[in-house]
Amino acid sequence: MTETAAFLARINPPQTPVLVVRRSALLHNLATMQAACDAAGVRLRAHGKMHKCTALAELQVAGGAVGLCCQTVGEAETYARAGIADVMVTAPVPPWGWARLAAIAGARVSAVVDSAAQVALAAGSGLTLFVDVDPGTHRAGVAPDAALALARVIDATDGVSFGGIQAYAGHVQHMQPAARIAANATLATSLAALVAEFTLAGLPPPQVTGGGTGTHALDLAAGVFTEIQAGSYALMDVDYDEAGATGGDWPFRPALYLAATVVSARHKALVTCDAGLKALYTDGPPPRVIAGAAPGSRWRSLGDEHGAIMHPASLEALRTGSGDVVAAIDASGGWHADAPAEGAFVWLHPGHVDPTIALHDALFVADEDGTFERWTIDARRAS
Amino acid sequence: MTETAAFLARINPPQTPVLVVRRSALLHNLATMQAACDAAGVRLRAHGKMHKCTALAELQVAGGAVGLCCQTVGEAETYARAGIADVMVTAPVPPWGWARLAAIAGARVSAVVDSAAQVALAAGSGLTLFVDVDPGTHRAGVAPDAALALARVIDATDGVSFGGIQAYAGHVQHMQPAARIAANATLATSLAALVAEFTLAGLPPPQVTGGGTGTHALDLAAGVFTEIQAGSYALMDVDYDEAGATGGDWPFRPALYLAATVVSARHKALVTCDAGLKALYTDGPPPRVIAGAAPGSRWRSLGDEHGAIMHPASLEALRTGSGDVVAAIDASGGWHADAPAEGAFVWLHPGHVDPTIALHDALFVADEDGTFERWTIDARRAS
Repeated sequence: MTETAAFLARINPPQTPVLVVRRSALLHNLATMQAACDAAGVRLRAHGKMHKCTALAELQVAGGAVGLCCQTVGEAETYARAGIADVMVTAPVPPWGWARLAAIAGARVSAVVDSAAQVALAAGSGLTLFVDVDPGTHRAGVAPDAALALARVIDATDGVSFGGIQAYAGHVQHMQPAARIAANATLATSLAALVAEFTLAGLPPPQVTGGGTGTHALDLAAGVFTEIQAGSYALMDVDYDEAGATGGDWPFRPALYLAATVVSARHKALVTCDAGLKALYTDGPPPRVIAGAAPGSRWRSLGDEHGAIMHPASLEALRTGSGDVVAAIDASGGWHADAPAEGAFVWLHPGHVDPTIALHDALFVADEDGTFERWTIDARRAS
Repeated sequence: MTETAAFLARINPPQTPVLVVRRSALLHNLATMQAACDAAGVRLRAHGKMHKCTALAELQVAGGAVGLCCQTVGEAETYARAGIADVMVTAPVPPWGWARLAAIAGARVSAVVDSAAQVALAAGSGLTLFVDVDPGTHRAGVAPDAALALARVIDATDGVSFGGIQAYAGHVQHMQPAARIAANATLATSLAALVAEFTLAGLPPPQVTGGGTGTHALDLAAGVFTEIQAGSYALMDVDYDEAGATGGDWPFRPALYLAATVVSARHKALVTCDAGLKALYTDGPPPRVIAGAAPGSRWRSLGDEHGAIMHPASLEALRTGSGDVVAAIDASGGWHADAPAEGAFVWLHPGHVDPTIALHDALFVADEDGTFERWTIDARRAS
């Protein structure tokens, strides 16, 4: 049994499917990213879109993060209401969102813009506005050669202040390490040139914000960003594990698990657990089976509420077979002695953490002795 | 402008992304399925796993449904608490769930079992138990030749009663019509033989329950089921639309839409809206763009919180191009006059309704004049 499996075996979830956070791994990850930022003299702005949980956000700020960033107006409202003193919306705000951001009390609120129309909607709001620059992701942001003009619009608009530049290279975060290093170096050079252009024009950006878990080491070394927006580092997922770190191993540990119960065990090829599409978002790599099943077992979707835990001895036959392969395997011999029993817990490591968390209401945060507390995912669906 | 687009243009959502139900289409769908069941003399047990909304469940029962079915213990608790008098759990119950089901007051509660161990856990609970038979889906359920033995275990156990047989052919629901007709005919023959076996053995099944939206017309015609478990018919989705009905067109109308806002419009190839993976589950066919964009536009994921609305003139270039195709299209000419403007609403028809609803907290139910009321998705994440 692995060390992780031994830890998970000490936990007795009251129901399933539930997300379980290993507190020691979470705290390690928070401290590790903060120390890396501190050593580089760069601010950490933790991305609250990933966990959507104010209890976790408070830990990040207590550890040294300058504040939280968000993707939605509702997340910003939720974090500010919980006492986070500095919140930033990192995606262009819909027209209906500006009045709500302006009404947030008790926190410094900033947002990105990528059009003059957005600046006009923000006029008089008291908000700090960042020029969102598109580093090639083509999701949002102006082209670099249009950035200065938009900054001048902000600077000339009453009741808003110019906060600096945001450049988030979302398309680079999950590249394989060699490609990521090359792409990020090109982007760092462009961004440094843009900062120089702004400075020469008399609008030096107070902050240059962006980056993420995948490029954080490169961004800290390049020295262009004054602030890193990282989210996934706190909990990690299969997606980042498969992409790999840019230098050796990840300094961050897997900290998030999904507990499921085996509800049916009528086949030799597979058992059925109660973790399906409504418990695990499946846009990227599938979740990994971590504990509670034979080594080499894999999860496959059996629909909205169920998943198969495939026994490794069956995987090859299922890949190459045709027709009713499960029935054929059933007919081929006896039960696998190391298959999970009906009623047992099986533990999975989610494939993609952000949308998986968006399917749940709470994180069960477990200590090493298996005791746990419940943290509400209180910024969920706050659009 | 299509009739649907004209309806959607009358709605002004207070925020996005939000799910909007067209009440007239919903009511049409509920009445149509109920009438088909009534004409066949078969009970309708509406599947509450799809919508997870007690306000919608109450409409189904008021219209004639015998009760609701659920996939989780928490859904059963929620529906019973809301006053639904007959609830059934259609998936094997985890060990921790039996005491909770037994504690539900004020409703007739039934559940399926596929092992003697589950029957033992239910002993003394007062629950009605159905033998879950696997029709080849291999998710849960005993093989048909083991069904009678399990029914005898139920019959011999104190404090539970034998409710009948469940056979849910999940793998058949989305087959193309010709294949679905053939597969369902074979299953109906097997199921009729099983019912005869039970009856000859002195355990005639009080109910034979199963079926779904995809096979409902076939199941009603075959006359083996006494009760149909249909869910998706109430709202429909792209998945069922693409699978097609088994006889002509679907008698059910699309009733569910997602409203999104265009938050960035910096490219010729696409605009960016605020509906991404956290608003739309993407395991099946992608959502369709229904209104607010040029005809032929398509949605593509831009990550957790954003989607691209791809202009039809760009789709071919994006499919065949390489490198930075968006930048190449930008450089190729002017803006498309019929592309959605920044700040405008875009309307999507979800690809797969069940897990998409699991990402949301509420349905905005709109009348033909565009006014709407908010229904809470109150059985969401009730595991």
